[in-house]
Amino acid sequence: MEIRYKPEELTRLPRSVRYEPGRVTMIDQTLLPREFREIELRTVDEVAEAIITMKVRGAPAIGAAAAFGLALYADTSNARTKEEFMDGFERAYERLKNTRPTAVNLFWALNRVKSLVEEHLEDPLDEIKRLIVAEAQKIANEDVEANLRMGHYGAEVLPEGNVLTHCNAGSLATVQLGTVGAVLRVMHRDGTLKLLWVDETRPVLQGARLSAWEYHYDGIPLKLISDNMAGFVMQQGKVDAIIVGADRIVANGDFANKIGTYTLAVLAKEHGIPFFTVAPLSTIDMSLKSGKEIPIEERKPEEVLTCGGCKIAPDVDVYNPAFDVTPHKYLTGIITDQGVVWPPFERNLKKLFKRE
Amino acid sequence: MEIRYKPEELTRLPRSVRYEPGRVTMIDQTLLPREFREIELRTVDEVAEAIITMKVRGAPAIGAAAAFGLALYADTSNARTKEEFMDGFERAYERLKNTRPTAVNLFWALNRVKSLVEEHLEDPLDEIKRLIVAEAQKIANEDVEANLRMGHYGAEVLPEGNVLTHCNAGSLATVQLGTVGAVLRVMHRDGTLKLLWVDETRPVLQGARLSAWEYHYDGIPLKLISDNMAGFVMQQGKVDAIIVGADRIVANGDFANKIGTYTLAVLAKEHGIPFFTVAPLSTIDMSLKSGKEIPIEERKPEEVLTCGGCKIAPDVDVYNPAFDVTPHKYLTGIITDQGVVWPPFERNLKKLFKRE
Repeated sequence: MEIRYKPEELTRLPRSVRYEPGRVTMIDQTLLPREFREIELRTVDEVAEAIITMKVRGAPAIGAAAAFGLALYADTSNARTKEEFMDGFERAYERLKNTRPTAVNLFWALNRVKSLVEEHLEDPLDEIKRLIVAEAQKIANEDVEANLRMGHYGAEVLPEGNVLTHCNAGSLATVQLGTVGAVLRVMHRDGTLKLLWVDETRPVLQGARLSAWEYHYDGIPLKLISDNMAGFVMQQGKVDAIIVGADRIVANGDFANKIGTYTLAVLAKEHGIPFFTVAPLSTIDMSLKSGKEIPIEERKPEEVLTCGGCKIAPDVDVYNPAFDVTPHKYLTGIITDQGVVWPPFERNLKKLFKRE
Repeated sequence: MEIRYKPEELTRLPRSVRYEPGRVTMIDQTLLPREFREIELRTVDEVAEAIITMKVRGAPAIGAAAAFGLALYADTSNARTKEEFMDGFERAYERLKNTRPTAVNLFWALNRVKSLVEEHLEDPLDEIKRLIVAEAQKIANEDVEANLRMGHYGAEVLPEGNVLTHCNAGSLATVQLGTVGAVLRVMHRDGTLKLLWVDETRPVLQGARLSAWEYHYDGIPLKLISDNMAGFVMQQGKVDAIIVGADRIVANGDFANKIGTYTLAVLAKEHGIPFFTVAPLSTIDMSLKSGKEIPIEERKPEEVLTCGGCKIAPDVDVYNPAFDVTPHKYLTGIITDQGVVWPPFERNLKKLFKRE
């Protein structure tokens, strides 16, 4: 696989989160799709609040934002001794860590910076500060590079034509290109993406609010549909491939993703449509044998009883699973930053991790 | 099949539309689910406006409302001559006919009353008035009786357990019991309906707004879900049967119904779940050979771009088919007011119509 495009050739969007000395800049996603506005944060507290209030969302984007929070501390600290600096660093680390209790990428990014600091405690304070900022930038850059690889790998294997996607695994969920977003953007650039079908993705509407907005912003021809229209669109022969993100992929290829993904998988099988998931290797959890072991988060009923802020139903009982699990038998391939994994997934995922 | 329950044993709801001398009473469905209020209409114009503004909806309910509009005219006309009366009757007929351009039941009900009047033009004026009112009441009563038969036929063939439904083919769409609604109510009364899964039914949310409201009102245990959760619920083994209404059934058993029905049919097949449609014989159009001949209405993009009155997406292109077509191969049986039709549908529907 050859990397043929630079990130700036694939999107008009700035990085969803970035750092310059003394300033974290991010797209305020709570204003989308009504308004595209960037905000500038100048304190660790402001960064923590932005994560809590979901101005930034999507695991990789949250991880980078948190790392940038530590960079901001390093650049703005007035500590006169290394001890004073490290006390403040610990407070900043704790403050950022306690923003989203279940965000694995958040802990991963914060710990990566913290470990580096702990390895260099004997270095001069200025050097420690420099290392923190550099590591945070590296975390963000690596995310963009991994997306870029996934995008090129994906574009090699997806058929030319109309693609359907669900939820948002785009630029807004990552630092810049997205996982699914990178594949769609490389295909669009190649001229092989004719039309993108965007599922609105009830109950939280990440498709309607975020995917429709960001792909439209990048000039990708698309049509927004309600989730229950996808089957009819496939029946009419208007979908050539489906790609979705993944929250967790396990050792046999089963994967958890936003609720509604499993229904798309069954529809894809019925209509003979290739069905791919796209995710970095870090999403693959080889410690779980099958999808049956993945716990499914059930969220508050208000998400189903309302839509975009409007009350839509009487106060009745609700079932609101945030994710579903798609068995690997429905999956055509897994597009990772290290290449595409084909069936049999159990054997080929094992090989991939041995090679690593 | 034996009719075991009276309508009032099956629902606490009044008829969605009814007539007493000089007064049409209907449930104002535009206020649901926030408020359950009945309105009283005392002029033909008020009835026409109620149909236009969708205070009453659902083909059978609209048909009865229109017939009651003519009854209201008959009871309130000050005409001193038969000629004067007939002039006014024509105006009332036209006013009611022009309320909803595509409502087949509306024309059918109005024409049924009109034909009767035309057959009795030689009768005394008071007799003509009496005939109009009686025919309108008969139209409404026949709808309730047909639903009652469908309910009992359906309850004989659906398995005990959890049932999933889509859209609203309930009491609110008919005069009192519903098509699907009657089956669910007889099952609930029999104790064979454990739990009802209600799809919210985007984009217009008839499931969330109307079905969830009316079945909850009648004490049926239910859970509301987003449409894209249905597949996951089936995968978990929590659905024992699916029943939906039908807008049109054709000679080979293919049928059109609210968008999302086809996806449920595919999911039902994948999970080995019985899948039924419920409709009166009048919904079956033997003039069309297959579902491919059914035209699909595409509705305005605003329905997808908003939800329950809230804007949810940027102004992007939208596809908004109101219905989809489910091929008969996915169908377990068709529950009608004249019994259950089993495969092969083409042969058995033909037989049913010959017997008629």
